[in-house]
Amino acid sequence: MSDDHFHDECGIFGVYGHPEAANLTYLGLYALQHRGQETAGIVSSDGRRHFNYRGMGRVADVFKRESLAGLKGHAAVGHVRYSTTGSSVIANSQPIAVNYRNGCLAVAHNGNLTNALELRATLESRGAIFQTFMDTEILLHLIAQSSSNDLREALIMSLFRLQGAYSMILMSEGALMAFRDPFGLRPLSLGKLDGGWLVASESCAFDILDGQFVRDVEPGEIVFIDDNGLRSEKPFAPAGRRFCLFEFIYFSRPDSFVEGEQVYEVRKQLGRELARECPTEADVVIAVPDSSNVAALGYSQESGIPYEIGLIRSHYVGRTFIEPDHRIRHFGAKIKYNPVRSVLEGKRVVVVDDSIVRGTTSGKIVRMVRRAGAKEVHFRAGSSPIKHSCFYGIDTPTTEELIASSKEVEEIAKAIEADTLYYLSIDGMLRAAGRRSDYCLACFNGDYFAGRPANFTKQILETNGGKNRP
Amino acid sequence: MSDDHFHDECGIFGVYGHPEAANLTYLGLYALQHRGQETAGIVSSDGRRHFNYRGMGRVADVFKRESLAGLKGHAAVGHVRYSTTGSSVIANSQPIAVNYRNGCLAVAHNGNLTNALELRATLESRGAIFQTFMDTEILLHLIAQSSSNDLREALIMSLFRLQGAYSMILMSEGALMAFRDPFGLRPLSLGKLDGGWLVASESCAFDILDGQFVRDVEPGEIVFIDDNGLRSEKPFAPAGRRFCLFEFIYFSRPDSFVEGEQVYEVRKQLGRELARECPTEADVVIAVPDSSNVAALGYSQESGIPYEIGLIRSHYVGRTFIEPDHRIRHFGAKIKYNPVRSVLEGKRVVVVDDSIVRGTTSGKIVRMVRRAGAKEVHFRAGSSPIKHSCFYGIDTPTTEELIASSKEVEEIAKAIEADTLYYLSIDGMLRAAGRRSDYCLACFNGDYFAGRPANFTKQILETNGGKNRP
Amino acid sequence: MSDDHFHDECGIFGVYGHPEAANLTYLGLYALQHRGQETAGIVSSDGRRHFNYRGMGRVADVFKRESLAGLKGHAAVGHVRYSTTGSSVIANSQPIAVNYRNGCLAVAHNGNLTNALELRATLESRGAIFQTFMDTEILLHLIAQSSSNDLREALIMSLFRLQGAYSMILMSEGALMAFRDPFGLRPLSLGKLDGGWLVASESCAFDILDGQFVRDVEPGEIVFIDDNGLRSEKPFAPAGRRFCLFEFIYFSRPDSFVEGEQVYEVRKQLGRELARECPTEADVVIAVPDSSNVAALGYSQESGIPYEIGLIRSHYVGRTFIEPDHRIRHFGAKIKYNPVRSVLEGKRVVVVDDSIVRGTTSGKIVRMVRRAGAKEVHFRAGSSPIKHSCFYGIDTPTTEELIASSKEVEEIAKAIEADTLYYLSIDGMLRAAGRRSDYCLACFNGDYFAGRPANFTKQILETNGGKNRP
Amino acid sequence: MSDDHFHDECGIFGVYGHPEAANLTYLGLYALQHRGQETAGIVSSDGRRHFNYRGMGRVADVFKRESLAGLKGHAAVGHVRYSTTGSSVIANSQPIAVNYRNGCLAVAHNGNLTNALELRATLESRGAIFQTFMDTEILLHLIAQSSSNDLREALIMSLFRLQGAYSMILMSEGALMAFRDPFGLRPLSLGKLDGGWLVASESCAFDILDGQFVRDVEPGEIVFIDDNGLRSEKPFAPAGRRFCLFEFIYFSRPDSFVEGEQVYEVRKQLGRELARECPTEADVVIAVPDSSNVAALGYSQESGIPYEIGLIRSHYVGRTFIEPDHRIRHFGAKIKYNPVRSVLEGKRVVVVDDSIVRGTTSGKIVRMVRRAGAKEVHFRAGSSPIKHSCFYGIDTPTTEELIASSKEVEEIAKAIEADTLYYLSIDGMLRAAGRRSDYCLACFNGDYFAGRPANFTKQILETNGGKNRP
Repeated sequence: MSDDHFHDECGIFGVYGHPEAANLTYLGLYALQHRGQETAGIVSSDGRRHFNYRGMGRVADVFKRESLAGLKGHAAVGHVRYSTTGSSVIANSQPIAVNYRNGCLAVAHNGNLTNALELRATLESRGAIFQTFMDTEILLHLIAQSSSNDLREALIMSLFRLQGAYSMILMSEGALMAFRDPFGLRPLSLGKLDGGWLVASESCAFDILDGQFVRDVEPGEIVFIDDNGLRSEKPFAPAGRRFCLFEFIYFSRPDSFVEGEQVYEVRKQLGRELARECPTEADVVIAVPDSSNVAALGYSQESGIPYEIGLIRSHYVGRTFIEPDHRIRHFGAKIKYNPVRSVLEGKRVVVVDDSIVRGTTSGKIVRMVRRAGAKEVHFRAGSSPIKHSCFYGIDTPTTEELIASSKEVEEIAKAIEADTLYYLSIDGMLRAAGRRSDYCLACFNGDYFAGRPANFTKQILETNGGKNRP
Repeated sequence: MSDDHFHDECGIFGVYGHPEAANLTYLGLYALQHRGQETAGIVSSDGRRHFNYRGMGRVADVFKRESLAGLKGHAAVGHVRYSTTGSSVIANSQPIAVNYRNGCLAVAHNGNLTNALELRATLESRGAIFQTFMDTEILLHLIAQSSSNDLREALIMSLFRLQGAYSMILMSEGALMAFRDPFGLRPLSLGKLDGGWLVASESCAFDILDGQFVRDVEPGEIVFIDDNGLRSEKPFAPAGRRFCLFEFIYFSRPDSFVEGEQVYEVRKQLGRELARECPTEADVVIAVPDSSNVAALGYSQESGIPYEIGLIRSHYVGRTFIEPDHRIRHFGAKIKYNPVRSVLEGKRVVVVDDSIVRGTTSGKIVRMVRRAGAKEVHFRAGSSPIKHSCFYGIDTPTTEELIASSKEVEEIAKAIEADTLYYLSIDGMLRAAGRRSDYCLACFNGDYFAGRPANFTKQILETNGGKNRP
Repeated sequence: MSDDHFHDECGIFGVYGHPEAANLTYLGLYALQHRGQETAGIVSSDGRRHFNYRGMGRVADVFKRESLAGLKGHAAVGHVRYSTTGSSVIANSQPIAVNYRNGCLAVAHNGNLTNALELRATLESRGAIFQTFMDTEILLHLIAQSSSNDLREALIMSLFRLQGAYSMILMSEGALMAFRDPFGLRPLSLGKLDGGWLVASESCAFDILDGQFVRDVEPGEIVFIDDNGLRSEKPFAPAGRRFCLFEFIYFSRPDSFVEGEQVYEVRKQLGRELARECPTEADVVIAVPDSSNVAALGYSQESGIPYEIGLIRSHYVGRTFIEPDHRIRHFGAKIKYNPVRSVLEGKRVVVVDDSIVRGTTSGKIVRMVRRAGAKEVHFRAGSSPIKHSCFYGIDTPTTEELIASSKEVEEIAKAIEADTLYYLSIDGMLRAAGRRSDYCLACFNGDYFAGRPANFTKQILETNGGKNRP
Repeated sequence: MSDDHFHDECGIFGVYGHPEAANLTYLGLYALQHRGQETAGIVSSDGRRHFNYRGMGRVADVFKRESLAGLKGHAAVGHVRYSTTGSSVIANSQPIAVNYRNGCLAVAHNGNLTNALELRATLESRGAIFQTFMDTEILLHLIAQSSSNDLREALIMSLFRLQGAYSMILMSEGALMAFRDPFGLRPLSLGKLDGGWLVASESCAFDILDGQFVRDVEPGEIVFIDDNGLRSEKPFAPAGRRFCLFEFIYFSRPDSFVEGEQVYEVRKQLGRELARECPTEADVVIAVPDSSNVAALGYSQESGIPYEIGLIRSHYVGRTFIEPDHRIRHFGAKIKYNPVRSVLEGKRVVVVDDSIVRGTTSGKIVRMVRRAGAKEVHFRAGSSPIKHSCFYGIDTPTTEELIASSKEVEEIAKAIEADTLYYLSIDGMLRAAGRRSDYCLACFNGDYFAGRPANFTKQILETNGGKNRP
């Protein structure tokens, strides 16, 4: 997949018990930016109050020395967000920080609630007002409307009402709580540094701090951290672990440990399985950089076909790039990739990409490789056909826009002008991930085990009486 | 008063039934910027949804062509705000726009609620979460928690619970509501344009649109405007009109009509009264520009002493001005005012200022006038000594910082180094304003008839369990 | 004249022999911003090197603490510029700083050379390359190509070749030189502070520093300032002083002393002369604020007709103001002025403006005053009809755009819809300025005694082979 | 070499005879940003005038739709610049655009003149003033002071006086000229698109436009392009081709064709030679990404040791990144690289880097790899020890800062804590580059065949009488 196709919603980070809490969060968010670069925010706590700073843009642009200096205290929670809608205004950034009857709360969320509309309607009917369109706000209202004044109790009661995918960090003045939905759809890891606790979407955020990776937060687990240390609680009945396969395929950084695996190794196995499932006569294997580099390397090692860097990726693509509009056409992927002619000319080329979403960029890459002289272009996707939208925290396009939702493999091959096309089988993905079951396959097979919205969220909101547009 | 001493909280503007609602609001806010220049916001409605844009800075800097173009619809509400605290972040700007069980609400507020803390505690105890520190948010929670689903009913029930000073504009998808507290402490006017209705803090905002000034919203009146036209309701028992005298003395623009008076005329009468109450031998009358120009003119006309422009005011003072810190001392007022030597040299000078707050700038001006050659400097304040903080919507300093709270007139004269000093009497102010009673005099006499906070708001918030700091 | 009509090119400031040279220049430029707000720049010298900082925008926006801190040394020269063309890019800002065979030079210029094209052609034919379109660059090339290595000598030889209007400050590593053209068309004053020397376009820039005004730099005088103190030289044959009358009428601040006069007093005399020359039956005199305030006051004092503030001026007009484009028409002057109805209603009104340039704003003001209820509107200009472009440093429109170049007074009265219109006579202006001769009247009578460009500069540049457009 | 160590000065691009000249230049510069990201500029020509836009930052940030739209015409020249000094102000950006006696000139330069100071002194003695500190300005003065009015003649005469390294594009109103120094030290290529001519530092800039690579501009060749087409001239006596080896080793993009070679292939040969010269027992080969990826791949293919991606590089490093300053130490390379533990743990690791400059980052990487569990770390540099500063267009540190200038290989191995260290031999580099001679080896062997500055430029400028500091 060329990286601009779809994106996880966000990365989250938390610290408790370290005098540099906000600075550590800044660095942790920095390491999580592949999960979101549009808004960044940190809320810190000195035990009595919360301090709060959010902005639009990359982490290093949002926070300056003065803004970090204002984020006092020994605890903090941070958030980076990717937003595909026009609504990427600061009002919809996180962490959300509020006051309720028992003090301050701040929350950062990675995931997506499937019963958000129902919960929102219920909360509104009990007098809640909503100032954002983030489902994250729901948890805060549930706690605020809870019958219990004990935050732990109120949180557990509230979580019982949530459906869908969530990894969250919640902070009061005096405690940090980290928890994952019972299926463990989205990742969340625990770390330590200098006696303080760290929480992060991925372990690469601990590495940048020289922090120590301890373990994953378990599916359905709530971890409470305060001055008395860390306590774990598992209030939910076991639900069966269903981790998002796409974290391995695309989202997580290869240097992260997720679900007990180094992502790099899983990604290499995806490439190896691909080579095993569909042996191909070819002269060279290339990746669509950078997300497919490791899978292509695995493919090469398994097949014996040499790995080369056939596409050079530009890292200077910015948000404001202007496509000149007159005579310069067919521009698309060229601003991002350029082929290396000596690698491709006269060759039978295997192109490994992690996935195919809409198929448009795949087609551009096939044509680019062919124009650089390739004799044959064999496109290999390191995942199965994506036929269904994700409701569990990944911002996929609608079903109609997914090329595999309406086209067979041969049709797709024709559409992207590849000589041959092969998708890794679901079994192949599972073998690569090292376990037979335990994964969410909803985008491949449509099995929405964790529920799905009654209707598509956006449509409902549009027609639901009214809406504040940011 | 030199203009940097204290400031009204804000200016508000609303439109219903005009295809250019947001554009009109933009211009209306532009004309109200003397009431607030730190944040500006507009929420518009197309009858089904709200559209929302806020930012920091002056109106012409916040809104660009694209942001205005996104504010669709035939109704709009806008707000400009002056904020003295460090918390002038965008999160505390208005209008506040939320969703509740019956759709969208947006509100803009000029004033200050005196029972905010009590109401907030009650609302929180019923499950409300607060995302800002503006008392304005309270009204929205009251409506959302109301037992009635009828917005008119819910609004009236909510208003019965508010104490203090407020002029507000509330907008749902399909209606605009404008209302003032029962004392009518802060101004609010009704206008018309091309068949649509306008609401504004001051009538000068109608002038910029070539709109027609209709009348003031009455104290305690609620005006409902929707597609069926305008309805008025007065649910409150008559409380006795108590308009803020300082709107005449300082805040309102001289070209506005407020409480049936052109502010210019009242201000001139203040100067005339001053001349009558304290006849002075002098050669020239000058104003502290620009807020005191009209009073000084009135003083001149009554006394026969020639009016001259003795201080030139710079309009290039910006927020980022750096005072060089080494050897260049005593800088203060010089960046803002410069004396005209030929006007002052060898003269007995009457300096008319609208009021004296801390006294520091007054002293600088007296010394500046004397250094320019004045033989005598007679300082005349167009209002009585300010001895008490305002809790009704004006951001005065604490009582301790008010020079007249602890010093007698002669001591103040000495402190500011004036040859003589005279404050207009309370009776003089009332004569100038044209009515004997009917005005709030709380900052002069401490009569807090509309309630006052149990403790000073800020302190309570600090110690009240916790606080999200922006 | 409403202030947006035409503008002097710039204000200049210099310091020698003060440890806070750049800070003083910053403040001095701040006080000169009425002469230019589009770009600002400072070059300082520590005796060995020059330091240089320029930017677009107002003085307080261009310079921050760090940029000022980098401007080391005991000497400095600064410049603020108003630019009407699209070419207000930073490349055309001043001071211009260069290196030549004998070291560093920096120059700031107020004025306009009439033989710029000829000099430029000559210099280019001798190998000069021009990097800007400012005629100021010419002086630097003349010095660099001079046969003398002595800067004093080279400067004098170069000045002999310049024609037109100039007040300039030139700085080498070790000296500051200030000089005016032989006619003394543009102002330049000398001041002192803490043993160091100051130079400024107007004396108000000394006041902000508590500096002492010493005297004007004389027409044709060169003042050399270095560690040995100040020396004066007058290398030119006496030419007859011809100061720009418009400095009194409009440009200079009323608190400045120019040509031995306080501008305030001259401006008041202009109003008095107007009242004497054309007695008018009226109820009230108002100014077009702020530039005409003093003249209107003089008119009132002479005529006995009361002075009132009939137009309120907004000071929040910014460069980015968007005029909404749909149905909101006839917008023009309303964003800047609003009439005070109680002052004007039913009255016979004398409107005093300092001058009439294109006449469009005058018409808008007359209509505005009439709509506010005035029974009669008598427009009075504090200067004679402007019939000719200025080539001596004021950015007037082309002759065709000057309403008085093609229309008689009665036609203009009709065009601006005034009941009567009167322009002060040339004799009246000269009486007000206190001398019979000695002034430049070129824009009134077309007498271009200091030369005029062979053709209009812009046209020539356009067709002259080529041009670098910024 | 980790990419932050040293940097080529710039990339240049030109177009003649295409209606989208500025847009093409924008895209061409975009593809050349690896050669400079601090300033970007374009000058275009419509045959009569030049249009000019420059700014600080990345190409996509500097140019917006409006600024591009203003760059009219069918010819253009552009420049991107990396600047290590504090003087990266816009005044020192390129192209430099001037007017001289025969019209407009604009020039973009990649390289460094070694006799700049002498030429500058001579030019100044003949009356030139210098407004920048770029040696590029010298060429323009030489042309302007030339005895010939024919631009071709003046250019050739001027080029005879230049010493050092230069690839330049010069544009008048009606022609584009591209030329390289007689040694051909820096690259410059010719391309075609839609009948128009393209010039670029590297051919990858043609690819982004779907332009056609034609050939390199030859060492000592001047290419004239105007409406009559392209003419080539070689006025210099043959000097012996001496191309910069570092273009292959580090600077040029692997997808570019330079000196007849695809850079990718040369870079792979560098890795192969390294493996041949110093066979090593190891389990895995990793690159310091991204500049060494291809060399590491070549090493792997030659040695048979598997290639893996052992370091993940962050592409979010920005200019404003704040290193928190309290307890978070040893931060250095971690913000840029993170090791992949599963690749390194328990392994004997070969780390391939393209070069070693100061050695500090090399040490950080060795330690990072070891902390990730590597049993042995064998560091391999794809180039010989860099012992001498570059005076031919690469911004190397001073000789003292080059670790190999004072330390032997074993000492360096110890300093960077590698188990073994090997540098590719000079012969190995030459074999990889495919020719025995023909390359500049000055940074390796100190042979400054194209001259060197009499003294170090900076020192001279500092003491040379004076200097304008930007």
